Amino acid sequence: MAMYKAPLRDMQFVLNEVFEAEKVWSSMPATEGIDLDTVNAILEGGAKIAENELFPINLSGDAEGVKFENGKVTTPTGFKEAWNTLAEGGWLGLGGNPEYDGMGMPKMLTVLFEEMLYASNAGFTLYPSLNTGATILLDAHASDEIKQQFLPPLYAGQWIGTMCLTETQAGTDLGLISTKAEPKGDGTYTITGSKLWITGGDHDLAENIIHLVLAKLPDAPAGSRGISLFLVPKFKVNSDNSLGDFNNVNCGSIEHKMGIKGSATCVLNFDGAEGIMIGEPNRGLMAMFTMMNYERLSIGIQGLGLGEVAYQSAMDFAKERLQSRAPGGAKNPEKPADPILVHPDVRRMALNVRAFNEASRAFASYVGMQLDLSKFHEDETIRKHGDNMMALMTPIAKAFITDRGFDATVEAQQIYGGNGYCTEWGAEQYVRDARIAQIYEGTNGIQALDLMGRKVFSNRGEFVKIFTQEVREFLASCADLPNMQAWTTTLETELKRLESLTETVIAAADKNPAEIGAASVDYLNLFGLVTYGYMWARMVSVAERKVASDTSGFYATKIKVGNHFLKRILPRTLALEQQVLAGADVLMDLEEEAFYVN
Amino acid sequence: MAMYKAPLRDMQFVLNEVFEAEKVWSSMPATEGIDLDTVNAILEGGAKIAENELFPINLSGDAEGVKFENGKVTTPTGFKEAWNTLAEGGWLGLGGNPEYDGMGMPKMLTVLFEEMLYASNAGFTLYPSLNTGATILLDAHASDEIKQQFLPPLYAGQWIGTMCLTETQAGTDLGLISTKAEPKGDGTYTITGSKLWITGGDHDLAENIIHLVLAKLPDAPAGSRGISLFLVPKFKVNSDNSLGDFNNVNCGSIEHKMGIKGSATCVLNFDGAEGIMIGEPNRGLMAMFTMMNYERLSIGIQGLGLGEVAYQSAMDFAKERLQSRAPGGAKNPEKPADPILVHPDVRRMALNVRAFNEASRAFASYVGMQLDLSKFHEDETIRKHGDNMMALMTPIAKAFITDRGFDATVEAQQIYGGNGYCTEWGAEQYVRDARIAQIYEGTNGIQALDLMGRKVFSNRGEFVKIFTQEVREFLASCADLPNMQAWTTTLETELKRLESLTETVIAAADKNPAEIGAASVDYLNLFGLVTYGYMWARMVSVAERKVASDTSGFYATKIKVGNHFLKRILPRTLALEQQVLAGADVLMDLEEEAFYVN
Repeated sequence: MAMYKAPLRDMQFVLNEVFEAEKVWSSMPATEGIDLDTVNAILEGGAKIAENELFPINLSGDAEGVKFENGKVTTPTGFKEAWNTLAEGGWLGLGGNPEYDGMGMPKMLTVLFEEMLYASNAGFTLYPSLNTGATILLDAHASDEIKQQFLPPLYAGQWIGTMCLTETQAGTDLGLISTKAEPKGDGTYTITGSKLWITGGDHDLAENIIHLVLAKLPDAPAGSRGISLFLVPKFKVNSDNSLGDFNNVNCGSIEHKMGIKGSATCVLNFDGAEGIMIGEPNRGLMAMFTMMNYERLSIGIQGLGLGEVAYQSAMDFAKERLQSRAPGGAKNPEKPADPILVHPDVRRMALNVRAFNEASRAFASYVGMQLDLSKFHEDETIRKHGDNMMALMTPIAKAFITDRGFDATVEAQQIYGGNGYCTEWGAEQYVRDARIAQIYEGTNGIQALDLMGRKVFSNRGEFVKIFTQEVREFLASCADLPNMQAWTTTLETELKRLESLTETVIAAADKNPAEIGAASVDYLNLFGLVTYGYMWARMVSVAERKVASDTSGFYATKIKVGNHFLKRILPRTLALEQQVLAGADVLMDLEEEAFYVN
Repeated sequence: MAMYKAPLRDMQFVLNEVFEAEKVWSSMPATEGIDLDTVNAILEGGAKIAENELFPINLSGDAEGVKFENGKVTTPTGFKEAWNTLAEGGWLGLGGNPEYDGMGMPKMLTVLFEEMLYASNAGFTLYPSLNTGATILLDAHASDEIKQQFLPPLYAGQWIGTMCLTETQAGTDLGLISTKAEPKGDGTYTITGSKLWITGGDHDLAENIIHLVLAKLPDAPAGSRGISLFLVPKFKVNSDNSLGDFNNVNCGSIEHKMGIKGSATCVLNFDGAEGIMIGEPNRGLMAMFTMMNYERLSIGIQGLGLGEVAYQSAMDFAKERLQSRAPGGAKNPEKPADPILVHPDVRRMALNVRAFNEASRAFASYVGMQLDLSKFHEDETIRKHGDNMMALMTPIAKAFITDRGFDATVEAQQIYGGNGYCTEWGAEQYVRDARIAQIYEGTNGIQALDLMGRKVFSNRGEFVKIFTQEVREFLASCADLPNMQAWTTTLETELKRLESLTETVIAAADKNPAEIGAASVDYLNLFGLVTYGYMWARMVSVAERKVASDTSGFYATKIKVGNHFLKRILPRTLALEQQVLAGADVLMDLEEEAFYVN
C-alpha cells in the first residue's frame, strides 16, 4: 500500500503547458538546444530510478538506519548500489556546468527530477542533494584550477560533497562559530574544530568526501563578517586526483533522529585537517549562501516529494478500504460497505493534500525558472527580474512548501485511520521524514525573517510590487476566459490584502524593529497562499483553454482541484491577515521570566 | 532538558478559582464531603508520582518499547513498578464507585490527575486509562454480582481492563465485526474471533486482564444493531476471585508504531474463550459508548498532557539557548548572544502552545464538571443541562484538544531548532506520542461527524443554543469589569458567527446529507475556538478581579497569555467560517476514480 509512481503527466503539464519551457529555453543560448525529447527522456529515466531503485529501499532504509561502528559510518542495504546507479547514469551532474562535465540542464527541469528522488527515498536523497549544493558553490566561487580538479569527480559521483556550518553553540547564529583555520604558509590552512549535524558527514557511498567548511582565520573580525570558507577533503587529493593520506577528519558520532534515518547526521571533528580556502577571506558566509539558496529550494522539494508519495499511498489504501455508507445511501450495495472516498471529509483531506502538492510542483518549477532566467538570459532586465523574484521566493519555497508538505503527510496519514500509525504502511515514516525539512537549512521561522526583513522591509516592498504586477499582468491575460472570473476577482482581493499588509508592517517596523519578527511567519504563510493562488490560476487558465477538446479528464480534474484551493484553502488568508495586524506588543508584553517553569 | 513539573498552581486556579469546585461539590450529596485539603493532597500526591516515577521512565520506555517473545508481552523497564505504585496508592480507583472500593472523586478533579499521568508518560498511561474506562462501563452496565466480583480488583490494580472493538475489516464501521459469541447453555458464551489494535491486550503489569469484547450472537441482526458486549478474562476467575484456567485469549502479535512505544498494541485471538454477557443482547455498542465517552475525554487529555510537557521542556531549552540578538539591540551584552526568547517569533510559538494548553486544562475540567453534574446533581434541570453539554462537548474535547495538543508538540519541537529532531531531548517523542490521539478512539473526523450530525443537526441546533446562552450569561456577569470589554465584544461576534453557521449548515443538510460531513471538521474547529474563547474569558475575568492585589505575577501573566489567544488565535474562525460556507459540492464534484493514481 506504500506506493510511488512519478507524476509524469503533471510534470509535463507544469513544464510544457503552464510555463512553456521550450519557449523559455530557446530564448537563452545556454539552454536553447534542449527539446521535448530530451526532457521526456530525463523525466522517464528519473522516474525509473525513483520507482525501481530508490522506493524499494525506503522503508527498509528507515528500519535499518545508518550504523556507526569503530568510527565508520555504514549506510543501509542498497544505498551504495543506488548511489552507483545515479553516478553511472550521469544523474549527479544533471544541472552541472558543462565546462566541467556537467549536463547543464536548467533548474526548472531538475526540480522535477529532485521531486522524484525525495518522494521515493528522502533519507537517501540528502546525499545527492548536498553533493549538488557543493558543486554549485564551487562552480560559483572556486578558482578554475579547483573546479577542474574537483567538479568532474563530484558530478561523476566518484566523490561526494557536504556543507559544514553548525557547531554546538552556533546554529542559526553562525557568527558564533569557533572552528579555526590557521595558514600553514604554503597556501593551505590547518582546520581545527568540531561541527555538528553534518548531513552525509561520513559514510560508505563514495571513495572520498569533500567538505565545505566554515571557519575563522586567526585575525578574523568577530561575528558573521569573520567567517571564511574552506574545502577540506576526507582524504587528501593528489594532483592526478588519486587519493593521498587520511586528512584527520573524524566522525565522532551520529545522531539518533525522528526520521531520515538512512541519512548519516554526523559530528565531525577536524583535528588539524588540511584545507584550501574558497573565495575571499572573511567572505565565506556570503559564498555559502550560494549553496544555501540552492539547498533551500531543494529542501522545499523534499516537502513536496513526501507530500506526493503520502498522497499516492493514502489513495492506494483508500481505494481498497470499505467503511460505512455514503451520506446519500450505499454506493456499493453489493459489498459490505462503501470505499472511504464516498465520505466528504475523507475527500476534503485528500483534496487538501493534492491541491497543495500540485501547486508546490508548479511553484518549484516557477522558482527554478526564475533562477534559470537570472543566470542565463541575455536581457539584463529579464535577468534582474528573475534575480529579484528568486530572492523573494526562496524563503517561501523553503518554508511554505515544507510546512504544507508536512501538513500533507499528516493529513494523508489521517486518511488511513489506525493503519497510518503503524510502521508497515509507510505513512508514519513520511511524517517523520518531512518534519526535518521545516527545521534544517534555516528553520522556517528564519526563512520568514529573511522574507519579511531582507526581502520586503529592506527594499520597502519593491519586490512585492514586482510580484503583484506580474500576477496582475497574468490576470489581465485571462480576460477572455469567462470561467476564470472567480479567480481573477478573488486574486485581485488577495493582492490588495498582501500590498496593504506589506505597507502596514513596513510602517510599524520603522517604529519598532520587533514588528518584523512578530509579523514574519504569518506574513510568509499569507504570501505563500497568494503565490499558490497565482500558480493555481495559471494552471486553471491552461486547463480552461483545453478542457472542451479533452477526453482524458486531466483538465477537468485540474479545474476541480483548483476550485477546492480557491474555495476551501485560500480563505485562510483572512485569519493570517488579522494575526499579522495584531502586532508585536501582544508577543513582547510578557516578561521573559514568565515563560519559564520554575 | 526534557523536564516535567506538574502545573499545580494552574490546576488549583482552574478548579478553585475559575469553576469554584467546592461550591459545585457541596451542592451534590455524592461529593459534598470533598474539601480543598483532599484536593490538594490528591494533586500533590499525583504530581509526585508523575514527576518521580513516570517521567523518569518515559524516554527509556520509548527507546526500549514493548517486547513480544514466545507469545508473551513484556513492558519496558520500570513499568511494572510504576503500576504497583499506582495500585498500592489506590490511584486506579480515584474516580471509582465507593460502593465497590472506589474513591469517588469527581471527574473535574480526576481529569487533572490524568493530565499529569499523560504528560509524564503517555505510553504508560494508556494502561490505567483503559482500566478506568472498563470500570466505568462495568459500573454502568454490569449486574451487581459482576460489579462485586470485578470492580474491587480492577480498582486495586490487581487486574486490569481493556476494550476490544476493532477488527481488520471493521474500524470506524463496527457494524462489520465478525467475532462470534455462541451461548454454551450455562449462561456463558464461547467467544471466537480476532481483534486488532487492542491497547494493553497483553502484558506483564497485573495478574489478570479483563477484556470487554464486542461480538455477535448467532441470531444477531446485521450491522451495528446486532452487537453484544462480553466480559472475557485472560484467566478464568473462580468465585473467590482466585485465578482458574487460561481462557484461550492469545496475543498473536504486537504492532510496530510511530509512538506510544511503551504501550502494547496487540492482535488478540479469542480462540473459544469463555465470556459473560454485559447488559442486554444486541445492545453492546450502546453500552460500549459509556466507556468510549470516558475514553474520548481521556484521550483529549493525552493531547493536553503532551502539549504541557512539550512546552515545559522547550522552555527549559530556551532558557539556556543563546542565539543572535534581540531586535532592538543586545539584551545580554556581556554574553555572546541573547536567549532565544528575545525573538518575537519564538515567543509567538511559545505563546501559541501555552494559550492552548491553559485553555485545554480549563476545558477538560469544565467537561468533567458537566459529567459530574449530569451524574450526581439532585436537580433534574441541572442534570439535564450537564448531560446536554457533555454530549455536545465530548467530540470537541476529544478532537480539538488532541489536534491542538499535536500542534503544540510540533510547535514546541520547532523552538529547539535541530535539537528538537534528535531523540535525546524528548521533543520528537512528544510529537510521535501525540499523533495517535488524533486517530484512535474514533478519528477526529469521526468526532466532527458526531458533533455536526448527532449533536447539532439531529436536534436542530438545540444544544448550540444552550451553549451560547450559557456564554452570554457569563459575559453579562462581566459587565462590571471594564478590561473585559474586548472579550465581551469579540465573543459576542463569535457566538453570532457560530449560530449563523449552525443554521446555514442545518438548512443545507436538509437538502443534501453530504453537507454534514463537508462542514464537520471546520465547524468543530470553529466551535473549539469559540469554546476556548469562553474558557479564556472565564480565566481572564477571575484574573482581572485579582490582579491589582497580587504580587506573584500569576494573574498578570494569565491576562497576557489570554490576550495572545484573543488577538492572535481566535481570528482563525474567519477562515474556518468561509471553509464551512464553501459547502459540499466542491468536495463531491470530483469523480472517485480521479482521486486514484493509475
